[in-house]
Amino acid sequence: MTKQYISTHQDRFLAELFELLRIPSVSADSRHKDDVRKAAVFLVGKLKSAGAEKVELVETAGHPIVYGEKIVNPALPTVLVYGHYDVQPPDPLNLWTTPPFEPVIREGVIYARGSCDDKGQVYMHIKAFEILCAQGNLPCNIKFMIEGEEEVGSDHLGTFVKENKARLKADVILISDTAIISLDHPSITVGLRGLSYMEVEVTGPNRDLHSGVYGGAVANPINVLSRMIASLHDENGKVTIPGFYDDVIELSPSERAELNKAPFELSEYKKDLDIADVAGEKGYTTLERTGIRPTLDANGIWGGYTGEGAKTVLPSKAHAKISMRLVPNQSPARITALFTSHFQSLAPSTVKVKVTAHHGGEPAVTPTDSAAYQAASRAFEQVWGKVPIPTRDGGSIPIVALFKKELGLDSVLMGFGLDSDAIHSPNEHYGVRNFLLGIETIVAFYGHYVKAVR
Amino acid sequence: MTKQYISTHQDRFLAELFELLRIPSVSADSRHKDDVRKAAVFLVGKLKSAGAEKVELVETAGHPIVYGEKIVNPALPTVLVYGHYDVQPPDPLNLWTTPPFEPVIREGVIYARGSCDDKGQVYMHIKAFEILCAQGNLPCNIKFMIEGEEEVGSDHLGTFVKENKARLKADVILISDTAIISLDHPSITVGLRGLSYMEVEVTGPNRDLHSGVYGGAVANPINVLSRMIASLHDENGKVTIPGFYDDVIELSPSERAELNKAPFELSEYKKDLDIADVAGEKGYTTLERTGIRPTLDANGIWGGYTGEGAKTVLPSKAHAKISMRLVPNQSPARITALFTSHFQSLAPSTVKVKVTAHHGGEPAVTPTDSAAYQAASRAFEQVWGKVPIPTRDGGSIPIVALFKKELGLDSVLMGFGLDSDAIHSPNEHYGVRNFLLGIETIVAFYGHYVKAVR
Repeated sequence: MTKQYISTHQDRFLAELFELLRIPSVSADSRHKDDVRKAAVFLVGKLKSAGAEKVELVETAGHPIVYGEKIVNPALPTVLVYGHYDVQPPDPLNLWTTPPFEPVIREGVIYARGSCDDKGQVYMHIKAFEILCAQGNLPCNIKFMIEGEEEVGSDHLGTFVKENKARLKADVILISDTAIISLDHPSITVGLRGLSYMEVEVTGPNRDLHSGVYGGAVANPINVLSRMIASLHDENGKVTIPGFYDDVIELSPSERAELNKAPFELSEYKKDLDIADVAGEKGYTTLERTGIRPTLDANGIWGGYTGEGAKTVLPSKAHAKISMRLVPNQSPARITALFTSHFQSLAPSTVKVKVTAHHGGEPAVTPTDSAAYQAASRAFEQVWGKVPIPTRDGGSIPIVALFKKELGLDSVLMGFGLDSDAIHSPNEHYGVRNFLLGIETIVAFYGHYVKAVR
Repeated sequence: MTKQYISTHQDRFLAELFELLRIPSVSADSRHKDDVRKAAVFLVGKLKSAGAEKVELVETAGHPIVYGEKIVNPALPTVLVYGHYDVQPPDPLNLWTTPPFEPVIREGVIYARGSCDDKGQVYMHIKAFEILCAQGNLPCNIKFMIEGEEEVGSDHLGTFVKENKARLKADVILISDTAIISLDHPSITVGLRGLSYMEVEVTGPNRDLHSGVYGGAVANPINVLSRMIASLHDENGKVTIPGFYDDVIELSPSERAELNKAPFELSEYKKDLDIADVAGEKGYTTLERTGIRPTLDANGIWGGYTGEGAKTVLPSKAHAKISMRLVPNQSPARITALFTSHFQSLAPSTVKVKVTAHHGGEPAVTPTDSAAYQAASRAFEQVWGKVPIPTRDGGSIPIVALFKKELGLDSVLMGFGLDSDAIHSPNEHYGVRNFLLGIETIVAFYGHYVKAVR
């Protein structure tokens, strides 16, 4: 019956999703403030028409939160669906085959910024909800909380959650903002890395200088910044910030062995990325490096002359954005503090260094023995024909730890993307098949969940 | 009489210079191709009206060369004046107090891109020539060769020089494209550093990746590039490229002592740049580091996300522009080759590295015992009341070595700028006093020169 409904309505489902994907709701860019709001307003309308009640565009000090609910019977369990409608900036624009906000389907795949992260996945939930309402068999209560600041640190969701504990009362949180291993290997994410995101500025002379007149006698901020960044890793790929690994919980050999059972083909991985070798912390596999180990990456660097041709400048300033992915038990606040003092200590007396923190996020692990996890597992098994593999994901959904802390609720991370979907990159995409199977799986989840908690 | 003429005409001289400064003749930027030509056409007109003959806008495969001459008597000595009418890009634009191509005078100083480097200095020569012609006492033959590609490597001047040896026949080259120590300490540059200018590109994965999903397992091109740049200097500030110092001629202790006699106040230098410390090769003074030692500076770096806020990207590529200043006897071609092979060798197997060379330039030394140098020295003494100090300049005028090689001619580097004129930087400026005294000094030079060679 669900399959039939999806098949009948799939063209409309995709048309609606495309309408949402056309809105450039880039939360990081203040020029897109109105677009972000427009995406929220769009979702308000779609939640209402799907059958939600008390639908509200909740104002915050930043971008708005979309809330809606359907209470069938207060005695039934309640699932709180979380997602986000904001997207990453589309840069570098020139690398997109088709424009990021003009969605197209090529060979069964939707290409658009946000197609996978997270508009496509959020929209599956609204359509699954529509199906259950339309068929008159919604088996439990559902609440929706869809924010517009996930890509910039969810700055105002915390306040909303703290001030709306009664409204958000639920039994479990359901989130689709992660990936499965492959269409042949469904999986459920049970661990997420945390995040500390820093920005650094190195200032040498008070103005850009002629590199001939001053070069070799005045510290060059680019060269200095390069040395500072280089020193953040040792020759074994370990992060050198003192205390960085203090709170990391080492997994047991059997836990590591279990983790490494996940399907992974190094040669395929290298081929997909066109790299001759992987790189990382010595003594760990690729799955471990992204799953259970904290890491440090420069996400951006800039300084001096970057235009066409040659300019012989010794620049006044150089900048970098540097982020660290953290594993359970590491605290972003502590890591941010450790980074700041260590980075300052690296600066020679010839420059001034400014370190500022962007958003951070707590790492998280979710239980696999809960009714909700089991329901998600059965829903995958029912629709995909295979029991999903529990995986540790390298990314961060900081809000998972916040939900646990403020609402006392565990999350189930039932995502349907693929690691190769190029989220945060040019040509982000999402399989039409993932989208449609995802809707079916979500519908199935509610039935299994209600059975499991009864 | 010269003083009188300058004083009567100085407003017009400045108005004409301003007209030239208003033309954004940025040779590095192809969007300014027409502007570069416009500046050349302007100079053609001014050379003609000053009294030059056979004035010609010479086409090249790049920007045109302006040529003009005045042959008083073939038996008299001939001075070939070289200069350039192209300018550096004005970036970063936001740091200019007033727009770079809208010249203004503030407190006796002309602010504009090119005011010192080199339009202001070139124009002094045209006005000195005008004075001598107007007064009917041009004591020797003068030829002008003013190019539009100095800031991008003088790519087509070499061909012009080689193909026009007869036309360019002269006894000495006179160039004003350098600086004096201060208004109180006139000086003449007798050494110039050469230049190798490289661009490097480090490619990791074939697309930008999500730093959570891939971070820690895939080499990050920014981190790799930082390590590669960092390794180009050792802990003593020496460049680590094998063979880099092989051809450097070490100065004798007495030569170094002489060089260090030039007026230099470290505390003033640091205060002017707002730096707590200078930096550079161990065992050398600041004057030596910029005058007699080869150096390496990153002139620009870019990669990943550099916009507002945070983007958790592991970028596909990172880039840098890196240049080396060379001292006499070092060969830019050899250093470019050494850099290329060394930089390639630094690359780990996890990335691909592309190294390309922008323009280079030969280092040069000019004799101090020549008639022309002595004439320049006397001209300074006459106008400024002090014998100028011979100095080694950190910058590069590659054409000096070319003139020596192709025409067999020495150059006299009679510049009138100041190191603090912010050439190549925002708010480039040039003193009105430097401009006017410079004209007077150039007029005096011709008289002394003809006397000295007779």
